[in-house]
Amino acid sequence: MTRQASLEVLARAHVGRLACAQENQPYVVPFYFTYHSDSLYSFATVGQKIEWMRSNPLVCVEMDEVVSPEEWVSVIVFGRYEELPDTPHYEAERAVAYNLLQKKAMWWEPVYVKTTQHGTQRPLVPVYYRIHVAQITGHRATP
Amino acid sequence: MTRQASLEVLARAHVGRLACAQENQPYVVPFYFTYHSDSLYSFATVGQKIEWMRSNPLVCVEMDEVVSPEEWVSVIVFGRYEELPDTPHYEAERAVAYNLLQKKAMWWEPVYVKTTQHGTQRPLVPVYYRIHVAQITGHRATP
Repeated sequence: MTRQASLEVLARAHVGRLACAQENQPYVVPFYFTYHSDSLYSFATVGQKIEWMRSNPLVCVEMDEVVSPEEWVSVIVFGRYEELPDTPHYEAERAVAYNLLQKKAMWWEPVYVKTTQHGTQRPLVPVYYRIHVAQITGHRATP
Repeated sequence: MTRQASLEVLARAHVGRLACAQENQPYVVPFYFTYHSDSLYSFATVGQKIEWMRSNPLVCVEMDEVVSPEEWVSVIVFGRYEELPDTPHYEAERAVAYNLLQKKAMWWEPVYVKTTQHGTQRPLVPVYYRIHVAQITGHRATP
């Protein structure tokens, strides 16, 4: 697939799998994102994923559209994590991630409920971040 | 979720995302597998994924069952890659992976066709492997 066709898959996708790594141990989780201007914007509470990406910003994102075993698209991004701190400099970028949070609040809610129910100390303040797309490749299977 | 409940998700899943890493660069791809006796069995042609796992056997696998944004299960495995070479010692283990290949041959076929169509030299001999489950965690959201 061309870079343009792969970017189009990215632009219409909203859920993918985000992989990070620490000391050569990879870690992969599902995540929601929104694509804007060569970056994937998202948010999370502080936890293993954020801590690992803070210490090693190299990440990989996979997303796919599966119609059937013979008809699917899979796009893989190599990218770099960048946190969007609460400063005037990042105001516009944070707004993009915040809009996603607003749209996905319903989905996010259970995480909040679970966290408090189990009485853990994890702070609920969302961390906003983006993944810069450094390299993108796509594969398509057609029947 | 209990370890047992997480293992049950694994046992009924057949597709997941496999993350490997090299020099702290993670890489994640979708893959088919079959769960058998504390391991995930699968196969692939030699390529980036196999080469990276050969050089660093630490991997992570994520699989999920999503009913709706409020109702989903996500299971994450930290594991270790082990290749199943064509020797008498690995005969039984290779059979488990081979059964999966037989079931998924239809799905695999496009890869074969694509590989030859583009005239690349990638050998088609499948590499059989398993991922030993070292650690498993699961999260469930209920409406």
